[in-house]
Amino acid sequence: MKAVQFYGRRDVRVAEVAKPEPKPDQVLIDIEWCGICGSDLHEYIMGPAAIPSKRPHPLTGEVLPITLGHEFCGRVVSAPADSHLKPGQAVMIDPRLYCKSCSRCSTKSTNACCSWGFHGLSGAGGGFSESIAVDPSMCYPLPDSVPLELAALIEPLAVAWRAVKLTNIDDFGNRPILVLGGGPVGIAVIFVLRAKGAKRVFVSEPTTRRAEQNAQLADVVFNPIKEDVGERCRELTGGEGVDFVFDCAGIPSGFENGMDALRYRGTYVNIAGYEKPMTIPLRYFMFKEVTLMGSLAYDDQDFKETVEAFIQGKFKGVEKMVTSRIHLDDVPNKGFEELVTNKDDHIKILVTPKRENLGAV
Amino acid sequence: MKAVQFYGRRDVRVAEVAKPEPKPDQVLIDIEWCGICGSDLHEYIMGPAAIPSKRPHPLTGEVLPITLGHEFCGRVVSAPADSHLKPGQAVMIDPRLYCKSCSRCSTKSTNACCSWGFHGLSGAGGGFSESIAVDPSMCYPLPDSVPLELAALIEPLAVAWRAVKLTNIDDFGNRPILVLGGGPVGIAVIFVLRAKGAKRVFVSEPTTRRAEQNAQLADVVFNPIKEDVGERCRELTGGEGVDFVFDCAGIPSGFENGMDALRYRGTYVNIAGYEKPMTIPLRYFMFKEVTLMGSLAYDDQDFKETVEAFIQGKFKGVEKMVTSRIHLDDVPNKGFEELVTNKDDHIKILVTPKRENLGAV
Repeated sequence: MKAVQFYGRRDVRVAEVAKPEPKPDQVLIDIEWCGICGSDLHEYIMGPAAIPSKRPHPLTGEVLPITLGHEFCGRVVSAPADSHLKPGQAVMIDPRLYCKSCSRCSTKSTNACCSWGFHGLSGAGGGFSESIAVDPSMCYPLPDSVPLELAALIEPLAVAWRAVKLTNIDDFGNRPILVLGGGPVGIAVIFVLRAKGAKRVFVSEPTTRRAEQNAQLADVVFNPIKEDVGERCRELTGGEGVDFVFDCAGIPSGFENGMDALRYRGTYVNIAGYEKPMTIPLRYFMFKEVTLMGSLAYDDQDFKETVEAFIQGKFKGVEKMVTSRIHLDDVPNKGFEELVTNKDDHIKILVTPKRENLGAV
Repeated sequence: MKAVQFYGRRDVRVAEVAKPEPKPDQVLIDIEWCGICGSDLHEYIMGPAAIPSKRPHPLTGEVLPITLGHEFCGRVVSAPADSHLKPGQAVMIDPRLYCKSCSRCSTKSTNACCSWGFHGLSGAGGGFSESIAVDPSMCYPLPDSVPLELAALIEPLAVAWRAVKLTNIDDFGNRPILVLGGGPVGIAVIFVLRAKGAKRVFVSEPTTRRAEQNAQLADVVFNPIKEDVGERCRELTGGEGVDFVFDCAGIPSGFENGMDALRYRGTYVNIAGYEKPMTIPLRYFMFKEVTLMGSLAYDDQDFKETVEAFIQGKFKGVEKMVTSRIHLDDVPNKGFEELVTNKDDHIKILVTPKRENLGAV
């Protein structure tokens, strides 16, 4: 079958690989759609980073070439007789690999498994292919009411879901919130915030194209190059600042702005990867007694809740996240190279191995 | 009357100043004991920092020279007729000055008052003097069972009380805890942790003298120069790391060690002042989803609870904190210069304006 494989930096190939043969306890899935993630792009430009290049991944035993793609949905081809899955069933797949035995897995913190991995980054197949064999417990059945051409968005939404859940707020109501960076992660955070009742979401985003996208989703969009983000947030909040900041930008000036924008005892949640040092602005951290938290992927419960919210239609307008749909054959050029050249034009590029899917949408 | 005044860096003088005349709504206190704080020493060596030098403090209107000392107890000389205080009553004083009108004060977060100040740093008199006029609401009566020659320790204990309270744990039991820096603040934290049931307190402290002091109070003392603090903490916790870190050191290598030592989803509370950048070790912050918190002084409730715990005798062995007692006249030499020269020999130097107090202890 066809699969898009990562061979190295700037070297992604559409290759012919063996069709997966599911073990007796595995489900075989025909993939319908798979999103290109920022982490895939990071591997393409800067990698191999998370992708094992020399030392085999502890759970898969694999090194590159690795089939890419971890934001995928599909349909069941075959499943163990005792599973909850039937052939033809539409499913979203939690793409994580975890050991089930380390201290973190055994306390349900599977997101932080000491050997963590992902289908599509660590081996064991990926979503940019025709089929994949996975663990039945990672498959979430989707009813017919869910458009399968959008379901792959559940994965990035689950990342945002966990970050938002760390605040312990179920209904944000009028609490003011600042999202730093209006790219795919920031936008997923906005959708989750809206699903959790947030009525006052501000976004700080420097690029014009992204700011246009953000303006459709957020209440106010700031340009951090031209505006004083902290000051603007205080103007909009009776001088107090925002209750929560979600850092989806990962740049020091954003950290500074976000910490400035927070109210006394506000909470700053980081989801971003920082390439430069993340140095705490102490005058804000100490004098406002800020709480800083790191959010890492999602656990089983987060994923389950995100699927449920998706099925319930809580991510209203989520189709706006999809800015392009392409065929598997086109992933190197219309996927990765397109993102290198025109990154800000896109939120999410979805990939399908089935030509008929492109005609149907 | 006599008072120790700050004139500038390395320039602290025993001066003759006017005796305070209490306003009708103020209490006049004769001071019994006042501790020298690390922040006083910081002003002496590096200041003026918090002490107003050019711009008058917003609450006191004063600039230096400023009477020093904010960790003080005493006896009531006179009080408004309608107050809860009577002449002769022993009291501990909450030395803070706050505006009572800003958004933080009006939500009881007086520790973060937008105009915050302290008697003994911001004007309005200080504890290194014979008498002071204060607000009756800041005076906490002490029963005869409380040794007044120790009561001034309540103030640094209140700083530690808040930091520990931020964890929301009332009884630590066997939860492992690491304290970074075994100086006066770290030691106060240990006393508060013990008062809250902590049975497994580790301290990381590089100097021999402090380590000896710490060994009397903590369960294990690490030398961070010779030992891998993260590794040692994991050895002592079945490989998991500590639940909480209290940073009372304020140095980057300590931050690195503390973040390494934390377990997954552990909490790091900073109480220290950092002079170098506090750069987050991202591999620990993100992959362990650490929560970082800043703790700032104490509010009314924190102070009240600390006084109550002190009265109840919960800080067992707290007399070990006092390493020297001196007369007001000797503050420049046996106080500040002694701390500059032999800092690690001391935990707390207590000062009295009354010669008879020195004979009585």
